[in-house]
Amino acid sequence: MAVFTVLGAGMMGSAFTVPLADRGHEVRLVGTPLEAALVERLLRGEPHPGLGVPLSAGVVVEEVGRLDDAVAAADVVVFGVSSAGLDWAIGRLAPHAERPLMMITKGLLWDGQELRALPDVVAAALPDRAIHPVAVAGPCIAGELARRAPSSVMLACRDKALAQAMADLVRAEYYHPFVSDDVVGACACAALKNGYAMAYGFAAGLHEKIGGSPGSVAMHNLESAIFAQAALEMQRVVVALGGRAETAVGLAGIGDLDVTNNGNRTGRFGHLLGLGLSLDEAVERMEGATLECIEIVRVMREASTALRARGELGPLPLLDHMAAVVIDGATVAPPLGRFFV
Amino acid sequence: MAVFTVLGAGMMGSAFTVPLADRGHEVRLVGTPLEAALVERLLRGEPHPGLGVPLSAGVVVEEVGRLDDAVAAADVVVFGVSSAGLDWAIGRLAPHAERPLMMITKGLLWDGQELRALPDVVAAALPDRAIHPVAVAGPCIAGELARRAPSSVMLACRDKALAQAMADLVRAEYYHPFVSDDVVGACACAALKNGYAMAYGFAAGLHEKIGGSPGSVAMHNLESAIFAQAALEMQRVVVALGGRAETAVGLAGIGDLDVTNNGNRTGRFGHLLGLGLSLDEAVERMEGATLECIEIVRVMREASTALRARGELGPLPLLDHMAAVVIDGATVAPPLGRFFV
Repeated sequence: MAVFTVLGAGMMGSAFTVPLADRGHEVRLVGTPLEAALVERLLRGEPHPGLGVPLSAGVVVEEVGRLDDAVAAADVVVFGVSSAGLDWAIGRLAPHAERPLMMITKGLLWDGQELRALPDVVAAALPDRAIHPVAVAGPCIAGELARRAPSSVMLACRDKALAQAMADLVRAEYYHPFVSDDVVGACACAALKNGYAMAYGFAAGLHEKIGGSPGSVAMHNLESAIFAQAALEMQRVVVALGGRAETAVGLAGIGDLDVTNNGNRTGRFGHLLGLGLSLDEAVERMEGATLECIEIVRVMREASTALRARGELGPLPLLDHMAAVVIDGATVAPPLGRFFV
Repeated sequence: MAVFTVLGAGMMGSAFTVPLADRGHEVRLVGTPLEAALVERLLRGEPHPGLGVPLSAGVVVEEVGRLDDAVAAADVVVFGVSSAGLDWAIGRLAPHAERPLMMITKGLLWDGQELRALPDVVAAALPDRAIHPVAVAGPCIAGELARRAPSSVMLACRDKALAQAMADLVRAEYYHPFVSDDVVGACACAALKNGYAMAYGFAAGLHEKIGGSPGSVAMHNLESAIFAQAALEMQRVVVALGGRAETAVGLAGIGDLDVTNNGNRTGRFGHLLGLGLSLDEAVERMEGATLECIEIVRVMREASTALRARGELGPLPLLDHMAAVVIDGATVAPPLGRFFV
């Protein structure tokens, strides 16, 4: 058994403690400086407000002041912070950089020249570090994992043997990790799927806009064409970044896109845009929900423009349309005729 | 403009007349010997009972007695019959075998040695025929096409130039054909997606079986793992048959699977099996609905056993589980731990 210290008590960080505790590991869940109120509730034994269920009895919840001790005591550190909290988390890990690190925090960073996977950004920020972070990707709704519903994830690490070792530690009857060395592919898909799930939501909005009501005769044909085009464009981006196409059409790609299409906030947001609301109106209707889709579309507008200018990336007509809608205020009208080339 | 004669007045054959008529083609829709009552209703101008909307004004509906004249007058013949009606349709076409043929009727036939695509079976049954059939595949719910909702399809033909010529004839503002020469891939996916959509439905049934109610905390993680595994297995089958993996992860593969997952009869049937009903109970609850999923699972049990014995096909753990459920009466329990290898 091992000691796991999870930084960040958000939904996914907290849900990840469930299989760890069931496997008999010692688990410490440490809130960030912004999560003091959440940690107080968890310490009182209340259900996690995002998950709707209490944490496992064995999980030790700690306030941020205990963080350094908890990291020092850990065999494995898990980053469950938002990408905004990543610099903070890196600073906390720095004195103990020899520990295996699993990252629930994923995504892409555009540095003006390259699109970089967050695990690589973290590794570069810990220059003495000899081991690579392990990204946790794939179709895993936190509320389902917290209820022990059957879930599968991809553990992606440049050191595949380390990914395998982590998989063996975290595997549970209902939690199935698969390993890969395609970190860039896994992280690109984790970010891109938010944008494409927004586009998938366009179809239901367009249907309602012309007076349609929910039901079997809707715009599912359009949805599924968008899905297939998203798979094509995710492959194209992943390969341009040095990843493998199979990642984009596997668990961490179309698997994660499919789960994200299941009526969550991203799809609702796309629905509002399809209905014809402006970006500002749609954002307002989302009442402060985090919209990763806007962020990735903005990043990809800039990055894909530069990569295509350098001849490193093929056509992305759906992404271009998403950017036109989200950045330029264009009306939603997916360019089906330009798909699949 | 061209003369199109469509054999079979079912939902897809009838829906296909909508873009044809909008493009100004002369369209004849001829019922099969089993569709006499349907043809009578259409001749009276009633809505198509399956589609819920009337046919376009320009479409000439004909009784089966007028079939030979209609085929003789056609520039392009379209097979919209069920696969059971294929021999009959081939016999009608035989005297006019030089005409381009589009096939809405798709699928796979296991002849004891090989899995063959239906367009190839048709071509072989018309030995004097110099031109290849064009299969119409992809995510196209007939009711949506009949309402001119944005739809896209793949036209697959061993003669890609013929597929392109047909695409140029049938394209409409809302109907987007893309061309491919991967007939085997398109037909394999068209058949397989019915089986895998049944498996996708297992998850909702399993969720309900343990007392869950519909909502965002369900078994979507399991659904999406099944989706990704289905994409992997469809690629494996397509490549084993000489098709291309990209077809399975494109419009005619995962695109068609996604649209089939949208709550149609196949998904409901999988849901019932996931709930724990026996095959017979589940079939009874479907009240006579056509269940292509059972047929393809039976075909694939036999075919994949033979192909694997010859070393021509890799592991298909999800397909094997589907066969165990549908043929052997096993309890639904998707083998997640054996996926993705």
